[in-house]
Amino acid sequence: MVIGGDAAGGSAASQAKKRRSDLDVVMFERGRATSYSACGIPYWIGGAVASEQALVARTPDQHRAAGIDVRMHTEVVGIDLDRRTVRWRELDGGREGDEPFDDLVYATGSVPMRPPVPGIDAAGVYGVQVLDDGVALRAELDSGRVQRVVVVGGGYIGLELAEACRTRGFDVTVVDLSATPVGTFDPDIGEFIADAVRGEGIHLVLSDGVAAVEVGADGRACAVVTASGRELPADLVVLGLGVRPDVRLATEAGIPLGTSGGVAVDTRQRTQVDGVWAAGDCVESLHRLSGQRMVVALGTHANKQGRVAGINIGGGYATFPGVIGTAITKICDTEAARTGLSSREAERAGYSFVTAVVDSTTRAGYFPGSRPIRVKMIAERRSGRLLGAQIVGKQASAKRIDALAICIWNEMSVDEILSLDLSYAPPFSPVWDPVLIAARKAFDAVEADVR
Amino acid sequence: MVIGGDAAGGSAASQAKKRRSDLDVVMFERGRATSYSACGIPYWIGGAVASEQALVARTPDQHRAAGIDVRMHTEVVGIDLDRRTVRWRELDGGREGDEPFDDLVYATGSVPMRPPVPGIDAAGVYGVQVLDDGVALRAELDSGRVQRVVVVGGGYIGLELAEACRTRGFDVTVVDLSATPVGTFDPDIGEFIADAVRGEGIHLVLSDGVAAVEVGADGRACAVVTASGRELPADLVVLGLGVRPDVRLATEAGIPLGTSGGVAVDTRQRTQVDGVWAAGDCVESLHRLSGQRMVVALGTHANKQGRVAGINIGGGYATFPGVIGTAITKICDTEAARTGLSSREAERAGYSFVTAVVDSTTRAGYFPGSRPIRVKMIAERRSGRLLGAQIVGKQASAKRIDALAICIWNEMSVDEILSLDLSYAPPFSPVWDPVLIAARKAFDAVEADVR
Repeated sequence: MVIGGDAAGGSAASQAKKRRSDLDVVMFERGRATSYSACGIPYWIGGAVASEQALVARTPDQHRAAGIDVRMHTEVVGIDLDRRTVRWRELDGGREGDEPFDDLVYATGSVPMRPPVPGIDAAGVYGVQVLDDGVALRAELDSGRVQRVVVVGGGYIGLELAEACRTRGFDVTVVDLSATPVGTFDPDIGEFIADAVRGEGIHLVLSDGVAAVEVGADGRACAVVTASGRELPADLVVLGLGVRPDVRLATEAGIPLGTSGGVAVDTRQRTQVDGVWAAGDCVESLHRLSGQRMVVALGTHANKQGRVAGINIGGGYATFPGVIGTAITKICDTEAARTGLSSREAERAGYSFVTAVVDSTTRAGYFPGSRPIRVKMIAERRSGRLLGAQIVGKQASAKRIDALAICIWNEMSVDEILSLDLSYAPPFSPVWDPVLIAARKAFDAVEADVR
Repeated sequence: MVIGGDAAGGSAASQAKKRRSDLDVVMFERGRATSYSACGIPYWIGGAVASEQALVARTPDQHRAAGIDVRMHTEVVGIDLDRRTVRWRELDGGREGDEPFDDLVYATGSVPMRPPVPGIDAAGVYGVQVLDDGVALRAELDSGRVQRVVVVGGGYIGLELAEACRTRGFDVTVVDLSATPVGTFDPDIGEFIADAVRGEGIHLVLSDGVAAVEVGADGRACAVVTASGRELPADLVVLGLGVRPDVRLATEAGIPLGTSGGVAVDTRQRTQVDGVWAAGDCVESLHRLSGQRMVVALGTHANKQGRVAGINIGGGYATFPGVIGTAITKICDTEAARTGLSSREAERAGYSFVTAVVDSTTRAGYFPGSRPIRVKMIAERRSGRLLGAQIVGKQASAKRIDALAICIWNEMSVDEILSLDLSYAPPFSPVWDPVLIAARKAFDAVEADVR
């Protein structure tokens, strides 16, 4: 039995059934779609993706063709661990029932964070987490009554939604507590992002929080008031503060959470309750550098964790070895990516480190289409071990982060990195790839620190 | 004393002088430029790069400003290891002299391979290795008497030169011994490249060698005759067969070569002669997977090896840990890259392996600008260790090879690879990056083989 039919739940169901065709696999999904790309919603809202159907990787009927009993528009409202049943309710009509399980996969995903301020629950305030949210927000934007949009939160989702609204011609303001957008980047990288965002005509209100949402006579949000007292008129307020794990059912049923607030699982995606598995945005993962457990809501982890749970349920053996904080985003023609620990995270984790920042080009400087790229590295003092990296730049910059993620995964030092046999030809990089130049500079910093 | 002022020699001279400013550093260069990008020559010939000056990373005057005594247009014609001197000759005027050294860096580069067939030395047959060659070839193409170009060799350089000539409107035919172009790729990847090349209107004559160059009454090459007897009319013949290390001076002086024919060096770039170093296209490197020594002529290795030699000469400690065969190229809008061993190389090296090929997209399938990408993996039987990878596709495909190069460098298995925390967002990859999908499929192949 699988609760939640998106990335994690869908993968778990598919893998388990594929491995053991004799299993009866039931999957409950309360929304309008299965196995869709939540990460693609901003691009559908902005018009880059033509239809919501395009976001769906596997429809309910495709799951059914693979032998999975999919129950759409059906919410699980309770889990009884003693009787080994779940209580379900059909959203259309309200019919209810119990369904027994041997193994349970908890894949409920996440819910958007809502700051606890006056007016936050008013009409015209939208979180965008599931496809139904996206449909509702798009309808608002299409209604003709919206001109000014305020996005609360300047992280990945906030900026992607801001770009989507801006692309469609709205007047957009982003409010964020950090001094630079996407606060998980160091400020010298965040500045580059801020310039790109402003270059698109998006207003940034930084180092400022949301104190209240003002509600008009019609009961709809009409402005956002910031902590510093600024009033930002808004026909629509979009919440882009990120998400928190949806653990309500787990908590009620007694499935233990971890210290981070997500469902606690081991590397095989087993919860602490026998025969109960969990995967996706609702669980916590091990961060391999900080040693801490944390919740990372990303489709790529959800797919992997769901696959691991499904293989294990199907009698195989698979593990999810944790995360290192890799993330990537695109704001119009600017790309940004990070992996490992940021300076602040490295400090919190107790590391002592040096940093290096280099500005280079994506191709050989003389080659047409060569664009700027900035690479930052954070390396442990003495050992020179790479702890974190951040990249920002124009086209063909950010995907280079994968190379550095693998360096971190393998605990390589910046000295080792600068000898790597990376690809070189003038259309793809300078003869010293920007990541190698950064490694050289970081190595110099490590040596200077030792001296 | 440094013989050769391009990538390796220039880097060695710069690093040594930077580390120990009291050193007298003399650098001999017989050509027209120092520290230029030989890899950029095809793009200058094709017109993508505007001027030959753009290819120069550091001019003789810039080297001089850093305190290096640069002797341009001056060829070293002999090395006397007993007297610790080199014999030089100025190419303009022919003045000769001896210069003593304490340490010597041998960085003579390479010479284009010429098949030993009749007519190969006729006028109108061009190898393109140094900037002077490029200048001569460009002058021919600009002369107005060329319509038909035959490129001998369909490897990286051959195809880059073919594209350059095609871009300028010439009728271009490439002749190659392999069944698919760039024979260092497996045939299923090479086919993709062949289609791209033909799509640009370049004729491919494959599985056929060059038997002779026909020479006209004017003493110029007028056709290439293939081993199978085909006659390919040509106003110009371009050699794109690759290069061999320029070891003439080393051999004459008694600096030992390795089994591969390049100058033998250790990881600090020391030859077997005390105080004599070597770096760049003229040396052999350790291939970390096959365990064999081989000559790899690539600017990126030359720069790194030169840096290592220079640091060591300057009293520091640095090593060059070898290569794993990473290479990348672009043929019009098709990109291709490889790392590690190809199937044939893995066989020769004695590995037993399985392979997997996947076709995917560069971005989420629904995202605008998503383009095809094919990834092939070669994994050792049982252990699943990644031995090699090849990527071919359209824009934003090939640079992904760096991630896999680092996996190979760290001896990761395909099972470990598929758990990696790689970056994901719809503008950059599907939720399972193509390289992860390939790792999954390769892992399935390893498991199926075990069963």
